[in-house]
Amino acid sequence: MHEKGLLIVLSGPSGVGKGTVRKAIFSQPDLDFKYSISMTTRTPREGEVDGVDYFFKTREEFELLIEQGKLLEYAEFVGNYYGTPVDYVQETLDSGKDVFLEIEVQGARQVREKFPDGLFIFLMPPSLSELKNRIVTRGTETEEIINNRLNVAKEEIEMMHLYDYVVENDQIELACERIKAIVVAEHCRRERLEPKYLKMLEVK
Amino acid sequence: MHEKGLLIVLSGPSGVGKGTVRKAIFSQPDLDFKYSISMTTRTPREGEVDGVDYFFKTREEFELLIEQGKLLEYAEFVGNYYGTPVDYVQETLDSGKDVFLEIEVQGARQVREKFPDGLFIFLMPPSLSELKNRIVTRGTETEEIINNRLNVAKEEIEMMHLYDYVVENDQIELACERIKAIVVAEHCRRERLEPKYLKMLEVK
Repeated sequence: MHEKGLLIVLSGPSGVGKGTVRKAIFSQPDLDFKYSISMTTRTPREGEVDGVDYFFKTREEFELLIEQGKLLEYAEFVGNYYGTPVDYVQETLDSGKDVFLEIEVQGARQVREKFPDGLFIFLMPPSLSELKNRIVTRGTETEEIINNRLNVAKEEIEMMHLYDYVVENDQIELACERIKAIVVAEHCRRERLEPKYLKMLEVK
Repeated sequence: MHEKGLLIVLSGPSGVGKGTVRKAIFSQPDLDFKYSISMTTRTPREGEVDGVDYFFKTREEFELLIEQGKLLEYAEFVGNYYGTPVDYVQETLDSGKDVFLEIEVQGARQVREKFPDGLFIFLMPPSLSELKNRIVTRGTETEEIINNRLNVAKEEIEMMHLYDYVVENDQIELACERIKAIVVAEHCRRERLEPKYLKMLEVK
């Protein structure tokens, strides 16, 4: 009997750079955890590959999966569904490997209910003005849209209390190092290891 | 106002290699935490320097410090006192720096009572037979002394429940990396950071 893997959830407000940090982590060779690819109904952007960046589905396919309870979490954003297929997560955890999710705050809340023992990491902008900069430089949005997004981000930051760790995304490399350290540390938590070691004492 | 430093306590059964791991950690250049030098009444071994390896004190001096409440923890071992001066620890923590203690299990228990928020790391041998090997190869002890030490070590391992983390000392470098990861992770704990970030939301 091997131990179960750890469910690692990276989330945080829109615009904080979750995707960039996740890609940086998974570009490293010495990684022990598996990335759970999300599912979406949005159209692939140029260069995006089905089964690598996302599993691209039609609205009908996605809604069927919702009905069948095949999604660990899902949410609708600007008219498109995004979600996490539950089977891959469950099978990978059962095989003893850690699974890494990078999802929106509302999705993370759903996962927390189903996996209270998961490792929840909140990616945080260094400041609100920095977050505003990132939202602004993303595109050509109007002042109104920008302020709206910033208000949504503030509401998302208020969800921080549902998380175990907060990682500041001041520099991508530093954020990656912190996230990897958190995973290492979590595997050393006494509650997780004590049963194994107390068993050691029983054997002469 | 800066944040207070973190009190990091490394302990574990006799013979597990606490001193070796601690020295390996402090031989690294990129370290953010301060080592709290212990005080002892035992005679310096060859090459040991007062104020570097230990603060060497007479029995009378040590007992006066106990009376004056100047020791965070202390214990008597094979006729000698060992202890941690409280002032250095308190001043360093107040200045915002992390302090690292490497102490015996009975001392760690005293520290836990005074610093319940400290970070307590239990260094664990990979197996009991490995621990026995290490005790045996340390010197020319009789079978009786060795078995006695092993029984003490088992009792010490049963104190594991007082700790936050368990680090296996299978390889010194790996143990060091895990300990450093735990310190990084602990600084990212949400309870620790949330007040700072919620303040950020109040400012426009």
